[in-house]
Amino acid sequence: MCEKGGERVTGPDVAELVARARAGEPLAVGRLLSLVEAGGARGRQVASALADDGGRAHVVGLTGPPGVGKSTTTSALVAALRARGSRVGVLAVDPSSPFSGGALLGDRVRMAEHAEDPGVFIRSMATRGQLGGLAGATPQALRVLDAAGCDVVLIETVGVGQSEVDVVALADTTVVLLAPGMGDGVQAAKAGVLEVADVFVVNKADRDGATQAVRELRHMIGLGERGEWRVPVLRTVASRGEGVAELVAALDAHRQWSDGSGERERRRVARAEAEIEAVVVTRLRARIRDAHGAAGLPDLAKRVVAGELDPYAAADELQPGLAEPG
Amino acid sequence: MCEKGGERVTGPDVAELVARARAGEPLAVGRLLSLVEAGGARGRQVASALADDGGRAHVVGLTGPPGVGKSTTTSALVAALRARGSRVGVLAVDPSSPFSGGALLGDRVRMAEHAEDPGVFIRSMATRGQLGGLAGATPQALRVLDAAGCDVVLIETVGVGQSEVDVVALADTTVVLLAPGMGDGVQAAKAGVLEVADVFVVNKADRDGATQAVRELRHMIGLGERGEWRVPVLRTVASRGEGVAELVAALDAHRQWSDGSGERERRRVARAEAEIEAVVVTRLRARIRDAHGAAGLPDLAKRVVAGELDPYAAADELQPGLAEPG
Repeated sequence: MCEKGGERVTGPDVAELVARARAGEPLAVGRLLSLVEAGGARGRQVASALADDGGRAHVVGLTGPPGVGKSTTTSALVAALRARGSRVGVLAVDPSSPFSGGALLGDRVRMAEHAEDPGVFIRSMATRGQLGGLAGATPQALRVLDAAGCDVVLIETVGVGQSEVDVVALADTTVVLLAPGMGDGVQAAKAGVLEVADVFVVNKADRDGATQAVRELRHMIGLGERGEWRVPVLRTVASRGEGVAELVAALDAHRQWSDGSGERERRRVARAEAEIEAVVVTRLRARIRDAHGAAGLPDLAKRVVAGELDPYAAADELQPGLAEPG
Repeated sequence: MCEKGGERVTGPDVAELVARARAGEPLAVGRLLSLVEAGGARGRQVASALADDGGRAHVVGLTGPPGVGKSTTTSALVAALRARGSRVGVLAVDPSSPFSGGALLGDRVRMAEHAEDPGVFIRSMATRGQLGGLAGATPQALRVLDAAGCDVVLIETVGVGQSEVDVVALADTTVVLLAPGMGDGVQAAKAGVLEVADVFVVNKADRDGATQAVRELRHMIGLGERGEWRVPVLRTVASRGEGVAELVAALDAHRQWSDGSGERERRRVARAEAEIEAVVVTRLRARIRDAHGAAGLPDLAKRVVAGELDPYAAADELQPGLAEPG
């Protein structure tokens, strides 16, 4: 089933929705995802009801520069995972903007083949302006999908920047996709994605330069500090399903390694730390933005622009009692 | 002059450094940039000393997918701006990582031609793990460069994700670079960069597909909501300097329009709001991360992972007294 964000929820209470989601009812899953995206009091109710969930599904993050074929690869992975009977969730983490909305929806058409499959939950998550940002909403959405019985959740990012890297780095297994001739490894290194990869995929590997891209990546992996997990560099042509079985095998192998080594537990704790912090920061941001009167944020900002106040002094006025770190 | 981050500062006090920076002394500018990057008490001293600065330099943000030639374009812009006698600052906003460090430095070699020029200040800013992130450190660095007499400051991002878009969107003028055959407009739209562009540049315009890329962009601009500023779509071959004069002219035109229309003032206030908020959030984060004992963040995160606590309840324990927004 395929559900878009922003849905108004009325009617059934959270406990009932959770029970129905646990039974795998797509509509209930979609409504819970809407509630965690919206946050606030009902988001909190969902979190409370799902505190016990999470940890079952294998969370796989996919990132890489625009144009490498992330959506196509995600869709091919869904097909392969469904073929072996896994239930699959897909979170497509998109920058939210009215302007790009059309393009996004168009692209999601690729996932249409899975839209009617009751064993697949697909969700586009808006992030710009999102309360708590990616770090806040993503873990809650993971818990919903976990409760719904997903064996694997794929988180696909659209951009490739700091926020996106931060999110996929918190997955159990992070896949970094590249394509030949797209600026190659050095450009990806610049985006900071190389060091978060558990698995590299050179997609569109039927194009010129694939062998060189693989060689470059292997060289770069050799340069960096790595743990005991040996990062594989795979080749795929996702649009034809080539190499996808090998990718699934690599994901399984990493899951097994990270379960045994304690790495998965370590990342889950890091994810929870980021999540708690996001809740606190979201609350603080709301308090700051809601402040009215002479000490309100817009007024303070104008005084900073006018040179009457430096931003630290403005922060003192806005939220007294917090000291400078360091 | 070219200065790398992380320098230890000892010796001269902030007031002396500020006086020397105002006289254009490169070493003093570099030290002040180190202080604002490090934050803390001395960062605050710098902010206080520079409260009056900012607003003179024209702040130009450059973003776009990896591989479109942002560094080459930045370097070509510096040359063109120097040729007409402008003092120029360059902030290259990079994800900080030991793994990608080598690649980054290699790439900065392109800027080497400007390294000995006393009218050019170049700085790579680390962002990962940065206190306050991009929104916190960038405006302070802008103030330092303003005080040093820069007429134009170019902010070049490396990734193209949410954080990067947020930063360049706060520039006086935002340039979005694309290149033919790099996934084109739709892919850029997915990264959320289209709607923040004041000027589009199709770089590497001597390649196949440039005309199509320009046409696509013009079509997409037509679809979106635009103000009275007519977003130009330029073609450049930055590596040969082609189209760079036209780009400089477009930057000047946008500066003039935004000064006259109040748009520049509006963005400066938004930048100051983000900056004040970043100071407050940084302080709160530090308090959270420094909390010890049973209610410390790592302990709470473990309890969330164990299912004993939901993240909202954990946030209550960590920082009581903040209510849920909404």
